[in-house]
Amino acid sequence: MSGLLLRGGMLIPMTSREAIGLGDILIQDGRIAAIYPGGAPEEVRSSVSEIRNVAGQLVLPGLVNAHTHAAMTLFRSFADDLPLMRWLKEAIWPAEEKLTGDDVYWGTKLAIAEMLKSGITTFADMYFFMDQVAQASLDTGIRAHLSRGMVGFGPSAEKALTESAAFFRQYNGAGDGLTRVWLGPHAPYTCSPDYLKRVMALADELGTGLHIHLSETATEVDDMTKQYGLPPVELMDSIGLFERPVLAAHCVHLNEKERAILVEKGVGIAHNPVSNMKLASGVAPVEALRQAQAILALGTDGAASNNNLDLIEEMRQAALLQKVHLLDPLALPAYEALEMATIGGARALRWDDEIGTLEVGKRADLITINLQQPHLCPDHDPVSRLVYAAKGADVATVLVNGRILVDQGRLTCMDEEEVMAKATAAAYRLTRQ
Amino acid sequence: MSGLLLRGGMLIPMTSREAIGLGDILIQDGRIAAIYPGGAPEEVRSSVSEIRNVAGQLVLPGLVNAHTHAAMTLFRSFADDLPLMRWLKEAIWPAEEKLTGDDVYWGTKLAIAEMLKSGITTFADMYFFMDQVAQASLDTGIRAHLSRGMVGFGPSAEKALTESAAFFRQYNGAGDGLTRVWLGPHAPYTCSPDYLKRVMALADELGTGLHIHLSETATEVDDMTKQYGLPPVELMDSIGLFERPVLAAHCVHLNEKERAILVEKGVGIAHNPVSNMKLASGVAPVEALRQAQAILALGTDGAASNNNLDLIEEMRQAALLQKVHLLDPLALPAYEALEMATIGGARALRWDDEIGTLEVGKRADLITINLQQPHLCPDHDPVSRLVYAAKGADVATVLVNGRILVDQGRLTCMDEEEVMAKATAAAYRLTRQ
Ligand SMILES: [Zn+2]
Ligand SMILES: [Zn+2]
Repeated sequence: MSGLLLRGGMLIPMTSREAIGLGDILIQDGRIAAIYPGGAPEEVRSSVSEIRNVAGQLVLPGLVNAHTHAAMTLFRSFADDLPLMRWLKEAIWPAEEKLTGDDVYWGTKLAIAEMLKSGITTFADMYFFMDQVAQASLDTGIRAHLSRGMVGFGPSAEKALTESAAFFRQYNGAGDGLTRVWLGPHAPYTCSPDYLKRVMALADELGTGLHIHLSETATEVDDMTKQYGLPPVELMDSIGLFERPVLAAHCVHLNEKERAILVEKGVGIAHNPVSNMKLASGVAPVEALRQAQAILALGTDGAASNNNLDLIEEMRQAALLQKVHLLDPLALPAYEALEMATIGGARALRWDDEIGTLEVGKRADLITINLQQPHLCPDHDPVSRLVYAAKGADVATVLVNGRILVDQGRLTCMDEEEVMAKATAAAYRLTRQ
Repeated sequence: MSGLLLRGGMLIPMTSREAIGLGDILIQDGRIAAIYPGGAPEEVRSSVSEIRNVAGQLVLPGLVNAHTHAAMTLFRSFADDLPLMRWLKEAIWPAEEKLTGDDVYWGTKLAIAEMLKSGITTFADMYFFMDQVAQASLDTGIRAHLSRGMVGFGPSAEKALTESAAFFRQYNGAGDGLTRVWLGPHAPYTCSPDYLKRVMALADELGTGLHIHLSETATEVDDMTKQYGLPPVELMDSIGLFERPVLAAHCVHLNEKERAILVEKGVGIAHNPVSNMKLASGVAPVEALRQAQAILALGTDGAASNNNLDLIEEMRQAALLQKVHLLDPLALPAYEALEMATIGGARALRWDDEIGTLEVGKRADLITINLQQPHLCPDHDPVSRLVYAAKGADVATVLVNGRILVDQGRLTCMDEEEVMAKATAAAYRLTRQ
């Protein structure tokens, strides 16, 4: 029998807390073929083509980074600790002006290296030169949810529509389904309602969804309210944006009505706590949204505002930030934070039929975490250790579609030294010339 | 010439921002013998007994964990996400009741393993069975600032005084100065003013300082104000506590007058952002204290409320938390957070004559960080990358008193497997029997 048996790990399937326990998991043809709580029977063990011992490791669904701008790794720690507008105007925008497709390719590959090594198997990206992002994803084997950023003002507004359609047609479903394409209207303050209606029509024509930034800052809420008489989420609802799949990044500043809209319309909410903290945007009402059963996911945002792409740290941050903000140590417990990073992300991307849990028939996107380390010892609650104590560097194995992309902490799908050298060269050209 | 030359690293001496740059550093007889910006001359290179190439690494002072309860690693991720009093009464206190000196030894050694591997070279500890904590420190070679926790009520109040004096006499200055002993009155709500006055008298007799918890929660402030008519810091000032060296952990809830007192009296403030977040204690006024030039340090607190002992993460957390709390992206910049973790900690422990910066004549307590990794690439600002993107696992080399305790990420001073096995056995006995 062909197949890979992961043996003796502590399985965290993310289907329910009760399902957590020691067991084996069988992978065949890129999918989860069987799960054996307690261990696989002898006839399975003796007939599979490969067995890997993962005793002392957690086995869980790959993490879903539900909002990022991968190629911004090129600007990691570039001109930090400046006022926002100075940082954008004097540092980031002039550098982004010079971006080429080649830069985006290597910046994205650097991001993928970092994401895979810290357990992210799917990322939702919005940026420019998306062909290159798709190519970097396909070249490495990571699962990618891609949107070309669209700005509805100026000469590029029309181009954004035609290029997004072309990008969708070329890459949606590519790599045997590893790549999906949604449209990426940037935000209500960069896309007018009229423009958004054209984006919505295109999405419906293509049969796809929208990835958008919503209510990230108080300034945005004030500006939209002044300009249109409604805050961002209400404004989007008023034009019918949510009548199709929507992945909304941030959602920091929401009134009660807006929270209800997001829940009722099943909008996927990508919470980015580190970025919201570093840019001082505010604290999203995650605990309230969770109690209202919103679809909650986690994102790292780009490496210019984070500055790493570590979703384990992001889970911890989400849980800690809700607790201190609400002065409630019971807010956002560890398991619920882990849900956001796995099945929550899958649901937000409308990909939960294929990923987000360990279940028979789903794609074999899964990771293992090495628990045999001082900072994860002793072996009390595995979920609490993962969320409150682990780091991206504890990830041992990463599989996407059943393919091993990280093995004992090392990338098998790219030349890490080459990627760092090319990305560094690109970063130098963009920021120092 | 005997000595170790660390060659080609990016030096972050923490004396000033301007001193950051490539260079070599010479270590002799446990101290920093010379620093060569740009590189050591040929006659030094050809005559030292050992050269280590640290190109592609940061070289900086070892991190100072200014407040922890090391042996609480035994309770890491034990019964998390419970209400505070239930957690203490049903989980932590019953387990602590059963603690033996042997448990504390192995729990502390586990903490030291974790701390050294993540770049901490000095820790300030307050707990029970402190002989065992001292022994674990001396056995591994880490620098330790130790205080026996003293509770001023009940039958152990007297014992705390006599045992603290004996502990001081036996261990202060032990290990060729690696160990220092202060007294550890637990907190204003566990030590009455009268008892504290006896502790102060003993400290003065011994010529040492005090490590105390102050103003951790709003409840404490309310209780003290009701009971004594003054909030904790004012109360402590009224009895003259600050007329000797004091290391005060937390200081979350302070009025303006209390902030001024802490600054004027030169009290060392150990900020513990992760613990304050996890326990929902609140946000300490770190940025205001910094602007008033308070002595600010960073601590992890115990692993039951953190749940790791990673001061790099704690630096990042301090910076991010101030920014989002004050809605000011310029609050607590990266360099200032790094100061808290190094020279700030040294000053808070009154040990800055010996540690906290890379300066000729100081003890060779220093660490290197491996920057050649995807999540730290490209090589924009080294301090920003360290504070906003690095992890404890990026620490490559750790020296204390010139002795290499971590080499290429591996502990040289203890058997890590043995420590994890012994600590796990202790944790099982304490929590599962
Ligand atoms: Zn974004
Ligand atoms: Zn404490």
